[in-house]
Amino acid sequence: MNIVLLGSGNVAAVLGRKFRAAGHTILQIYSRNAKAASELAYEWDTESTNYKSTIVRQADVYIIAVNDDAIADVAANLELPGAVVAHTAASVSREILQNVSKHYGVFYPLQSLRTEMKDLPEIPVFVDGNDEKAISVLTTLARSISPEQVSGAGPEDRMKLHIAAVLVSNFTNHLYNLAAGYCQQEGLDFKQLQPLIEETALRLRDMHPAQAQTGPAIRLDQSTIDKHLEILKNHPRLSEMYRLFTKSIQS
Amino acid sequence: MNIVLLGSGNVAAVLGRKFRAAGHTILQIYSRNAKAASELAYEWDTESTNYKSTIVRQADVYIIAVNDDAIADVAANLELPGAVVAHTAASVSREILQNVSKHYGVFYPLQSLRTEMKDLPEIPVFVDGNDEKAISVLTTLARSISPEQVSGAGPEDRMKLHIAAVLVSNFTNHLYNLAAGYCQQEGLDFKQLQPLIEETALRLRDMHPAQAQTGPAIRLDQSTIDKHLEILKNHPRLSEMYRLFTKSIQS
Repeated sequence: MNIVLLGSGNVAAVLGRKFRAAGHTILQIYSRNAKAASELAYEWDTESTNYKSTIVRQADVYIIAVNDDAIADVAANLELPGAVVAHTAASVSREILQNVSKHYGVFYPLQSLRTEMKDLPEIPVFVDGNDEKAISVLTTLARSISPEQVSGAGPEDRMKLHIAAVLVSNFTNHLYNLAAGYCQQEGLDFKQLQPLIEETALRLRDMHPAQAQTGPAIRLDQSTIDKHLEILKNHPRLSEMYRLFTKSIQS
Repeated sequence: MNIVLLGSGNVAAVLGRKFRAAGHTILQIYSRNAKAASELAYEWDTESTNYKSTIVRQADVYIIAVNDDAIADVAANLELPGAVVAHTAASVSREILQNVSKHYGVFYPLQSLRTEMKDLPEIPVFVDGNDEKAISVLTTLARSISPEQVSGAGPEDRMKLHIAAVLVSNFTNHLYNLAAGYCQQEGLDFKQLQPLIEETALRLRDMHPAQAQTGPAIRLDQSTIDKHLEILKNHPRLSEMYRLFTKSIQS
Protein backbone atom coordinates (compact mmCIF):
# COMPACT_ATOMS: atom_id res chain seq x y z
CA MET A 1 0.00 0.00 0.00
CA ASN A 2 0.95 3.63 -0.33
CA ILE A 3 0.95 5.22 3.09
CA VAL A 4 1.26 8.74 4.46
CA LEU A 5 2.34 8.99 8.09
CA LEU A 6 1.18 12.00 10.08
CA GLY A 7 3.48 12.28 13.09
CA SER A 8 7.20 11.77 13.63
CA GLY A 9 7.44 10.48 17.19
CA ASN A 10 8.00 7.00 18.59
CA VAL A 11 4.85 5.39 17.21
CA ALA A 12 5.23 6.92 13.74
CA ALA A 13 8.89 5.94 13.53
CA VAL A 14 8.42 2.28 14.47
CA LEU A 15 5.18 1.76 12.54
CA GLY A 16 6.82 3.32 9.49
CA ARG A 17 9.72 0.86 9.73
CA LYS A 18 7.32 -2.04 10.15
CA PHE A 19 5.29 -0.90 7.12
CA ARG A 20 8.44 -0.65 5.01
CA ALA A 21 9.68 -4.03 6.20
CA ALA A 22 6.33 -5.47 5.05
CA GLY A 23 6.82 -4.01 1.57
CA HIS A 24 4.65 -0.92 1.77
CA THR A 25 5.71 2.53 0.56
CA ILE A 26 5.76 5.58 2.79
CA LEU A 27 4.83 8.31 0.31
CA GLN A 28 5.31 11.17 2.76
CA ILE A 29 5.71 12.14 6.40
CA TYR A 30 3.78 15.10 7.75
CA SER A 31 4.78 16.53 11.11
CA ARG A 32 4.91 19.86 12.87
CA ASN A 33 8.33 18.72 14.06
CA ALA A 34 10.22 19.39 10.83
CA LYS A 35 13.54 18.04 12.12
CA ALA A 36 12.19 14.67 13.29
CA ALA A 37 10.14 14.32 10.10
CA SER A 38 13.09 15.05 7.84
CA GLU A 39 15.24 12.51 9.73
CA LEU A 40 12.64 9.80 9.14
CA ALA A 41 12.21 10.92 5.52
CA TYR A 42 15.98 10.60 5.04
CA GLU A 43 16.00 7.14 6.63
CA TRP A 44 13.18 6.01 4.35
CA ASP A 45 14.24 7.88 1.22
CA THR A 46 10.95 9.74 1.03
CA GLU A 47 9.75 13.30 1.53
CA SER A 48 8.54 15.19 4.57
CA THR A 49 6.43 18.30 5.02
CA ASN A 50 5.26 20.44 7.88
CA TYR A 51 2.51 22.13 5.83
CA LYS A 52 -0.85 20.42 5.95
CA SER A 53 -1.80 21.90 2.57
CA THR A 54 1.04 20.00 0.86
CA ILE A 55 0.00 16.54 2.05
CA VAL A 56 -0.18 14.29 -1.00
CA ARG A 57 -3.60 12.96 -1.96
CA GLN A 58 -2.85 9.68 -3.70
CA ALA A 59 -2.09 7.44 -0.70
CA ASP A 60 -4.30 4.47 0.20
CA VAL A 61 -3.99 4.99 3.94
CA TYR A 62 -3.19 7.92 6.21
CA ILE A 63 -1.99 6.97 9.69
CA ILE A 64 -2.12 9.73 12.31
CA ALA A 65 0.41 8.72 14.96
CA VAL A 66 0.56 11.66 17.35
CA ASN A 67 -0.24 12.25 21.03
CA ASP A 68 -3.90 11.86 22.00
CA ASP A 69 -4.20 15.60 22.58
CA ALA A 70 -2.83 16.48 19.14
CA ILE A 71 -5.14 14.29 17.02
CA ALA A 72 -7.89 16.93 16.81
CA ASP A 73 -5.38 19.53 15.63
CA VAL A 74 -4.01 17.26 12.93
CA ALA A 75 -7.53 16.33 11.80
CA ALA A 76 -8.70 19.94 11.61
CA ASN A 77 -8.90 21.25 8.03
CA LEU A 78 -7.66 17.91 6.74
CA GLU A 79 -9.73 16.48 3.91
CA LEU A 80 -8.77 13.19 2.30
CA PRO A 81 -11.96 12.00 0.61
CA GLY A 82 -11.81 8.41 -0.60
CA ALA A 83 -8.75 7.40 1.42
CA VAL A 84 -8.75 5.46 4.67
CA VAL A 85 -7.57 7.50 7.65
CA ALA A 86 -6.85 6.16 11.13
CA HIS A 87 -5.26 7.28 14.37
CA THR A 88 -3.27 5.06 16.74
CA ALA A 89 -4.70 6.03 20.13
CA ALA A 90 -6.38 3.57 22.50
CA SER A 91 -8.40 6.19 24.34
CA VAL A 92 -9.68 8.36 21.48
CA SER A 93 -12.86 7.70 19.52
CA ARG A 94 -12.64 7.07 15.79
CA GLU A 95 -15.27 9.81 15.25
CA ILE A 96 -12.61 12.45 15.83
CA LEU A 97 -11.71 11.72 12.18
CA GLN A 98 -15.23 11.79 10.71
CA ASN A 99 -14.70 15.05 8.81
CA VAL A 100 -11.42 13.90 7.27
CA SER A 101 -12.74 11.07 5.09
CA LYS A 102 -15.75 8.83 4.57
CA HIS A 103 -13.56 5.89 5.71
CA TYR A 104 -12.02 6.34 9.13
CA GLY A 105 -10.93 4.22 12.01
CA VAL A 106 -8.31 3.29 14.59
CA PHE A 107 -5.07 1.33 14.22
CA TYR A 108 -4.01 0.70 17.85
CA PRO A 109 -0.63 -0.99 18.36
CA LEU A 110 -0.50 -2.75 21.75
CA GLN A 111 3.21 -2.31 22.24
CA SER A 112 5.66 0.16 23.71
CA LEU A 113 7.42 1.76 20.75
CA ARG A 114 10.61 3.84 20.83
CA THR A 115 12.35 5.52 17.93
CA GLU A 116 15.71 4.27 19.17
CA MET A 117 14.70 0.57 19.14
CA LYS A 118 17.28 -1.55 17.36
CA ASP A 119 14.99 -4.50 16.74
CA LEU A 120 11.40 -4.15 15.60
CA PRO A 121 9.22 -5.88 18.20
CA GLU A 122 6.10 -7.94 17.64
CA ILE A 123 3.11 -5.59 17.62
CA PRO A 124 -0.43 -6.90 18.23
CA VAL A 125 -2.78 -4.49 16.43
CA PHE A 126 -6.41 -3.67 17.28
CA VAL A 127 -8.48 -2.28 14.44
CA ASP A 128 -11.68 -0.25 14.45
CA GLY A 129 -13.44 1.37 11.48
CA ASN A 130 -16.68 3.09 10.55
CA ASP A 131 -17.37 1.07 7.40
CA GLU A 132 -16.35 -2.05 5.56
CA LYS A 133 -13.64 -0.35 3.53
CA ALA A 134 -11.96 1.19 6.59
CA ILE A 135 -12.05 -2.10 8.49
CA SER A 136 -10.86 -4.14 5.53
CA VAL A 137 -7.96 -1.85 4.54
CA LEU A 138 -6.77 -1.36 8.13
CA THR A 139 -7.03 -5.09 8.86
CA THR A 140 -5.02 -5.93 5.75
CA LEU A 141 -2.38 -3.39 6.71
CA ALA A 142 -2.28 -4.71 10.28
CA ARG A 143 -1.94 -8.34 9.17
CA SER A 144 0.94 -7.39 6.91
CA ILE A 145 3.02 -6.30 9.93
CA SER A 146 1.55 -8.71 12.51
CA PRO A 147 0.23 -11.81 10.75
CA GLU A 148 -1.09 -13.58 13.82
CA GLN A 149 -2.09 -10.85 16.21
CA VAL A 150 -4.77 -8.64 14.66
CA SER A 151 -8.18 -8.19 16.29
CA GLY A 152 -11.11 -5.85 16.09
CA ALA A 153 -11.65 -3.64 19.14
CA GLY A 154 -14.20 -0.90 19.75
CA PRO A 155 -13.58 2.04 22.09
CA GLU A 156 -14.49 0.16 25.27
CA ASP A 157 -12.24 -2.82 24.53
CA ARG A 158 -9.40 -0.48 23.57
CA MET A 159 -9.74 1.34 26.87
CA LYS A 160 -9.75 -1.97 28.75
CA LEU A 161 -6.70 -3.17 26.83
CA HIS A 162 -4.95 0.07 27.61
CA ILE A 163 -5.54 -0.49 31.33
CA ALA A 164 -4.02 -3.97 31.07
CA ALA A 165 -1.06 -2.48 29.20
CA VAL A 166 -0.57 0.11 31.94
CA LEU A 167 -0.47 -2.70 34.53
CA VAL A 168 2.04 -4.95 32.76
CA SER A 169 4.22 -2.21 31.29
CA ASN A 170 4.05 1.16 33.08
CA PHE A 171 3.59 -0.35 36.54
CA THR A 172 6.16 -3.13 36.14
CA ASN A 173 8.61 -0.54 34.80
CA HIS A 174 7.95 1.53 37.92
CA LEU A 175 8.83 -1.51 40.05
CA TYR A 176 12.05 -1.85 38.04
CA ASN A 177 12.73 1.82 38.67
CA LEU A 178 12.09 1.55 42.42
CA ALA A 179 14.42 -1.46 42.48
CA ALA A 180 17.08 0.47 40.54
CA GLY A 181 16.90 3.36 43.02
CA TYR A 182 17.09 0.95 45.95
CA CYS A 183 20.10 -0.83 44.42
CA GLN A 184 21.88 2.47 43.95
CA GLN A 185 21.25 3.50 47.57
CA GLU A 186 22.37 0.12 48.86
CA GLY A 187 25.47 -0.16 46.67
CA LEU A 188 24.13 -3.05 44.57
CA ASP A 189 24.39 -3.38 40.79
CA PHE A 190 20.89 -3.25 39.27
CA LYS A 191 22.25 -4.83 36.06
CA GLN A 192 22.70 -8.10 37.93
CA LEU A 193 18.90 -8.34 38.11
CA GLN A 194 18.49 -8.22 34.32
CA PRO A 195 18.56 -12.03 33.75
CA LEU A 196 15.90 -12.47 36.45
CA ILE A 197 13.75 -9.67 34.99
CA GLU A 198 13.89 -11.27 31.55
CA GLU A 199 13.22 -14.78 32.81
CA THR A 200 10.16 -13.56 34.75
CA ALA A 201 8.73 -12.04 31.57
CA LEU A 202 9.69 -14.82 29.12
CA ARG A 203 8.33 -17.56 31.38
CA LEU A 204 4.78 -16.37 30.64
CA ARG A 205 5.10 -17.81 27.15
CA ASP A 206 4.68 -21.26 28.67
CA MET A 207 3.11 -20.67 32.05
CA HIS A 208 0.16 -18.79 33.55
CA PRO A 209 1.39 -16.14 36.04
CA ALA A 210 -0.67 -17.78 38.80
CA GLN A 211 1.50 -20.92 38.41
CA ALA A 212 4.69 -18.86 38.23
CA GLN A 213 4.18 -17.00 41.52
CA THR A 214 7.01 -17.61 44.00
CA GLY A 215 8.61 -15.72 46.86
CA PRO A 216 8.15 -15.17 50.60
CA ALA A 217 4.61 -13.75 50.30
CA ILE A 218 3.05 -16.76 48.54
CA ARG A 219 5.02 -19.12 50.82
CA LEU A 220 3.63 -17.24 53.86
CA ASP A 221 7.26 -16.99 55.01
CA GLN A 222 6.67 -14.34 57.68
CA SER A 223 10.20 -14.56 59.07
CA THR A 224 11.72 -13.49 55.71
CA ILE A 225 9.01 -10.85 55.18
CA ASP A 226 9.84 -9.35 58.60
CA LYS A 227 13.57 -9.29 57.81
CA HIS A 228 12.88 -7.58 54.49
CA LEU A 229 10.64 -4.93 56.08
CA GLU A 230 13.34 -4.28 58.70
CA ILE A 231 15.87 -3.56 55.93
CA LEU A 232 13.30 -1.45 54.06
CA LYS A 233 12.75 0.80 57.11
CA ASN A 234 14.78 3.51 55.39
CA HIS A 235 12.84 3.17 52.13
CA PRO A 236 9.31 4.30 53.04
CA ARG A 237 7.86 4.13 49.52
CA LEU A 238 9.25 0.64 48.97
CA SER A 239 7.97 -0.46 52.38
CA GLU A 240 4.45 0.61 51.42
CA MET A 241 4.72 -1.25 48.09
CA TYR A 242 6.15 -4.32 49.83
CA ARG A 243 3.27 -4.44 52.33
CA LEU A 244 0.59 -3.89 49.70
CA PHE A 245 1.99 -6.57 47.37
CA THR A 246 2.49 -9.05 50.18
CA LYS A 247 -1.13 -8.56 51.25
CA SER A 248 -2.38 -8.74 47.69
CA ILE A 249 -0.38 -11.88 46.82
CA GLN A 250 -1.63 -13.60 49.97
CA SER A 251 -5.31 -12.76 49.43
CA MET B 1 34.84 -30.80 39.38
CA ASN B 2 33.09 -33.75 40.97
CA ILE B 3 29.87 -32.55 42.55
CA VAL B 4 27.22 -34.03 44.81
CA LEU B 5 23.85 -32.30 44.76
CA LEU B 6 21.73 -32.45 47.90
CA GLY B 7 18.17 -31.65 46.86
CA SER B 8 16.03 -32.49 43.84
CA GLY B 9 13.79 -29.46 43.42
CA ASN B 10 13.90 -26.55 40.98
CA VAL B 11 17.26 -25.11 42.06
CA ALA B 12 18.99 -28.49 42.21
CA ALA B 13 17.65 -29.51 38.80
CA VAL B 14 18.71 -26.35 36.95
CA LEU B 15 22.06 -25.95 38.72
CA GLY B 16 22.82 -29.60 37.99
CA ARG B 17 22.14 -29.05 34.29
CA LYS B 18 24.28 -25.93 34.29
CA PHE B 19 27.12 -27.80 36.02
CA ARG B 20 26.95 -30.63 33.50
CA ALA B 21 26.81 -28.19 30.58
CA ALA B 22 30.01 -26.62 31.96
CA GLY B 23 31.75 -30.02 31.98
CA HIS B 24 31.46 -30.99 35.62
CA THR B 25 30.38 -34.41 36.85
CA ILE B 26 27.42 -34.95 39.15
CA LEU B 27 28.63 -37.92 41.19
CA GLN B 28 25.38 -38.37 43.08
CA ILE B 29 22.05 -36.80 44.02
CA TYR B 30 20.82 -37.04 47.58
CA SER B 31 17.20 -36.21 48.32
CA ARG B 32 14.44 -37.27 50.64
CA ASN B 33 12.24 -37.15 47.56
CA ALA B 34 13.40 -40.45 46.05
CA LYS B 35 11.26 -40.12 42.92
CA ALA B 36 12.48 -36.64 41.94
CA ALA B 37 16.08 -37.64 42.71
CA SER B 38 15.90 -40.79 40.61
CA GLU B 39 14.44 -38.82 37.69
CA LEU B 40 17.36 -36.39 37.77
CA ALA B 41 19.81 -39.27 38.22
CA TYR B 42 18.33 -40.93 35.14
CA GLU B 43 18.58 -37.68 33.15
CA TRP B 44 22.22 -37.29 34.15
CA ASP B 45 23.22 -40.94 34.04
CA THR B 46 24.31 -40.89 37.67
CA GLU B 47 23.09 -42.35 40.95
CA SER B 48 20.66 -41.11 43.57
CA THR B 49 20.15 -41.93 47.21
CA ASN B 50 17.75 -41.00 49.95
CA TYR B 51 19.99 -42.28 52.75
CA LYS B 52 22.38 -39.73 54.17
CA SER B 53 24.77 -42.47 55.26
CA THR B 54 25.34 -43.52 51.65
CA ILE B 55 26.42 -40.10 50.38
CA VAL B 56 29.73 -40.55 48.58
CA ARG B 57 32.81 -38.92 50.12
CA GLN B 58 35.05 -38.26 47.15
CA ALA B 59 33.35 -35.16 45.63
CA ASP B 60 35.07 -31.77 45.51
CA VAL B 61 31.90 -29.79 46.23
CA TYR B 62 28.58 -30.55 47.90
CA ILE B 63 25.76 -28.16 46.97
CA ILE B 64 22.74 -28.19 49.27
CA ALA B 65 19.86 -26.87 47.16
CA VAL B 66 16.79 -27.27 49.35
CA ASN B 67 14.20 -24.93 50.91
CA ASP B 68 15.56 -22.55 53.56
CA ASP B 69 13.73 -24.46 56.30
CA ALA B 70 15.21 -27.81 55.27
CA ILE B 71 18.91 -26.83 55.24
CA ALA B 72 19.42 -27.52 58.96
CA ASP B 73 17.89 -31.00 58.58
CA VAL B 74 20.13 -31.86 55.64
CA ALA B 75 23.21 -30.54 57.48
CA ALA B 76 22.45 -32.49 60.65
CA ASN B 77 24.69 -35.57 61.07
CA LEU B 78 26.39 -34.79 57.74
CA GLU B 79 30.17 -34.86 57.92
CA LEU B 80 32.22 -34.19 54.83
CA PRO B 81 35.65 -33.21 56.15
CA GLY B 82 37.93 -31.73 53.51
CA ALA B 83 35.27 -31.02 50.91
CA VAL B 84 33.65 -27.67 50.21
CA VAL B 85 29.98 -27.53 51.13
CA ALA B 86 27.57 -24.72 50.31
CA HIS B 87 23.86 -23.98 50.37
CA THR B 88 21.98 -21.85 47.83
CA ALA B 89 19.78 -19.69 50.09
CA ALA B 90 19.92 -15.88 50.13
CA SER B 91 18.53 -15.53 53.65
CA VAL B 92 20.42 -18.25 55.53
CA SER B 93 23.83 -17.78 57.15
CA ARG B 94 26.75 -19.90 55.97
CA GLU B 95 27.38 -20.91 59.60
CA ILE B 96 24.48 -23.34 59.43
CA LEU B 97 27.02 -25.60 57.68
CA GLN B 98 29.93 -25.15 60.11
CA ASN B 99 29.71 -28.68 61.49
CA VAL B 100 29.62 -30.30 58.06
CA SER B 101 33.10 -29.36 56.85
CA LYS B 102 36.00 -27.03 57.56
CA HIS B 103 35.22 -25.30 54.25
CA TYR B 104 31.68 -24.00 53.94
CA GLY B 105 29.84 -21.22 52.23
CA VAL B 106 26.95 -20.03 50.10
CA PHE B 107 26.34 -20.34 46.36
CA TYR B 108 23.35 -18.02 45.76
CA PRO B 109 21.91 -18.01 42.22
CA LEU B 110 20.05 -14.74 41.56
CA GLN B 111 17.56 -16.25 39.16
CA SER B 112 14.16 -17.88 39.17
CA LEU B 113 14.77 -21.55 38.40
CA ARG B 114 12.19 -24.16 37.39
CA THR B 115 12.75 -27.83 36.69
CA GLU B 116 10.57 -27.60 33.56
CA MET B 117 12.67 -24.83 31.94
CA LYS B 118 13.53 -25.70 28.36
CA ASP B 119 16.41 -23.24 28.05
CA LEU B 120 18.99 -22.73 30.75
CA PRO B 121 18.90 -19.03 31.71
CA GLU B 122 21.82 -16.79 32.60
CA ILE B 123 22.41 -17.08 36.35
CA PRO B 124 24.34 -14.39 38.24
CA VAL B 125 25.92 -16.13 41.26
CA PHE B 126 26.83 -14.61 44.63
CA VAL B 127 29.45 -16.48 46.60
CA ASP B 128 30.28 -16.46 50.29
CA GLY B 129 32.75 -18.68 52.16
CA ASN B 130 34.41 -19.08 55.54
CA ASP B 131 37.95 -19.53 54.24
CA GLU B 132 40.10 -19.15 51.16
CA LYS B 133 39.46 -22.67 49.92
CA ALA B 134 35.68 -22.36 50.15
CA ILE B 135 35.67 -18.98 48.41
CA SER B 136 38.10 -20.09 45.72
CA VAL B 137 36.37 -23.39 44.86
CA LEU B 138 32.87 -21.87 44.90
CA THR B 139 34.01 -18.90 42.79
CA THR B 140 35.64 -21.19 40.23
CA LEU B 141 32.47 -23.30 40.06
CA ALA B 142 30.31 -20.16 39.74
CA ARG B 143 32.48 -18.71 36.95
CA SER B 144 32.25 -21.97 35.04
CA ILE B 145 28.48 -21.57 34.70
CA SER B 146 28.31 -17.75 34.67
CA PRO B 147 31.60 -16.37 33.35
CA GLU B 148 30.73 -12.67 33.71
CA GLN B 149 28.36 -12.47 36.63
CA VAL B 150 29.99 -13.80 39.77
CA SER B 151 30.37 -11.62 42.86
CA GLY B 152 31.08 -12.03 46.54
CA ALA B 153 28.18 -11.26 48.87
CA GLY B 154 27.94 -11.58 52.65
CA PRO B 155 24.65 -12.20 54.46
CA GLU B 156 23.54 -8.56 54.45
CA ASP B 157 24.13 -8.06 50.73
CA ARG B 158 22.39 -11.35 49.95
CA MET B 159 19.37 -10.23 51.93
CA LYS B 160 19.35 -6.89 50.11
CA LEU B 161 19.69 -8.62 46.73
CA HIS B 162 16.85 -10.93 47.65
CA ILE B 163 14.60 -7.92 48.35
CA ALA B 164 15.45 -6.48 44.93
CA ALA B 165 14.69 -9.87 43.38
CA VAL B 166 11.31 -9.96 45.13
CA LEU B 167 10.48 -6.53 43.66
CA VAL B 168 11.45 -7.26 40.06
CA SER B 169 10.27 -10.87 39.95
CA ASN B 170 7.62 -11.81 42.54
CA PHE B 171 5.90 -8.42 42.49
CA THR B 172 6.01 -7.96 38.70
CA ASN B 173 4.66 -11.49 38.33
CA HIS B 174 1.83 -10.54 40.67
CA LEU B 175 1.03 -7.57 38.42
CA TYR B 176 1.00 -9.99 35.46
CA ASN B 177 -1.35 -12.22 37.42
CA LEU B 178 -3.70 -9.37 38.34
CA ALA B 179 -3.73 -8.34 34.67
CA ALA B 180 -4.46 -11.93 33.62
CA GLY B 181 -7.41 -12.12 36.02
CA TYR B 182 -8.71 -8.76 34.82
CA CYS B 183 -8.40 -9.84 31.17
CA GLN B 184 -10.34 -13.01 31.89
CA GLN B 185 -13.13 -11.07 33.62
CA GLU B 186 -13.31 -8.53 30.81
CA GLY B 187 -13.17 -11.06 27.97
CA LEU B 188 -9.71 -10.00 26.75
CA ASP B 189 -6.89 -12.33 25.73
CA PHE B 190 -3.97 -11.94 28.16
CA LYS B 191 -1.64 -13.57 25.61
CA GLN B 192 -1.92 -10.44 23.47
CA LEU B 193 0.04 -8.61 26.18
CA GLN B 194 3.04 -10.96 25.93
CA PRO B 195 4.99 -8.91 23.33
CA LEU B 196 4.55 -5.78 25.48
CA ILE B 197 5.61 -7.63 28.63
CA GLU B 198 8.77 -8.89 26.94
CA GLU B 199 9.63 -5.54 25.39
CA THR B 200 9.26 -3.80 28.77
CA ALA B 201 11.76 -6.24 30.30
CA LEU B 202 14.23 -6.43 27.39
CA ARG B 203 14.39 -2.66 27.01
CA LEU B 204 16.30 -2.43 30.30
CA ARG B 205 19.34 -3.89 28.57
CA ASP B 206 19.85 -0.51 26.90
CA MET B 207 17.89 1.93 29.02
CA HIS B 208 17.54 2.90 32.67
CA PRO B 209 13.96 2.30 33.87
CA ALA B 210 13.63 6.00 34.79
CA GLN B 211 14.09 6.86 31.10
CA ALA B 212 11.72 4.10 30.02
CA GLN B 213 8.75 5.25 32.13
CA THR B 214 5.69 6.06 30.02
CA GLY B 215 1.92 6.06 30.52
CA PRO B 216 -0.84 8.31 31.83
CA ALA B 217 0.64 8.66 35.34
CA ILE B 218 4.00 10.10 34.28
CA ARG B 219 2.26 12.29 31.65
CA LEU B 220 -0.06 13.61 34.40
CA ASP B 221 -2.92 12.68 32.06
CA GLN B 222 -5.72 12.95 34.65
CA SER B 223 -8.49 12.52 32.11
CA THR B 224 -7.23 9.04 31.10
CA ILE B 225 -6.52 8.13 34.73
CA ASP B 226 -10.13 9.03 35.65
CA LYS B 227 -11.51 6.94 32.78
CA HIS B 228 -9.37 3.98 33.86
CA LEU B 229 -10.48 4.23 37.49
CA GLU B 230 -14.10 4.38 36.33
CA ILE B 231 -13.65 1.08 34.45
CA LEU B 232 -11.80 -0.42 37.43
CA LYS B 233 -14.71 0.32 39.80
CA ASN B 234 -15.62 -3.37 39.74
CA HIS B 235 -12.02 -4.46 40.42
CA PRO B 236 -11.34 -3.13 43.94
CA ARG B 237 -7.89 -4.71 44.32
CA LEU B 238 -6.76 -3.37 40.95
CA SER B 239 -8.17 0.07 41.77
CA GLU B 240 -6.07 0.21 44.92
CA MET B 241 -2.95 -0.84 42.97
CA TYR B 242 -3.73 1.66 40.22
CA ARG B 243 -4.03 4.54 42.70
CA LEU B 244 -0.89 3.59 44.60
CA PHE B 245 1.23 3.23 41.45
CA THR B 246 -0.12 6.44 39.95
CA LYS B 247 0.77 8.31 43.15
CA SER B 248 4.18 6.64 43.37
CA ILE B 249 5.08 7.28 39.71
CA GLN B 250 4.10 10.92 40.06
CA SER B 251 6.08 11.55 43.24
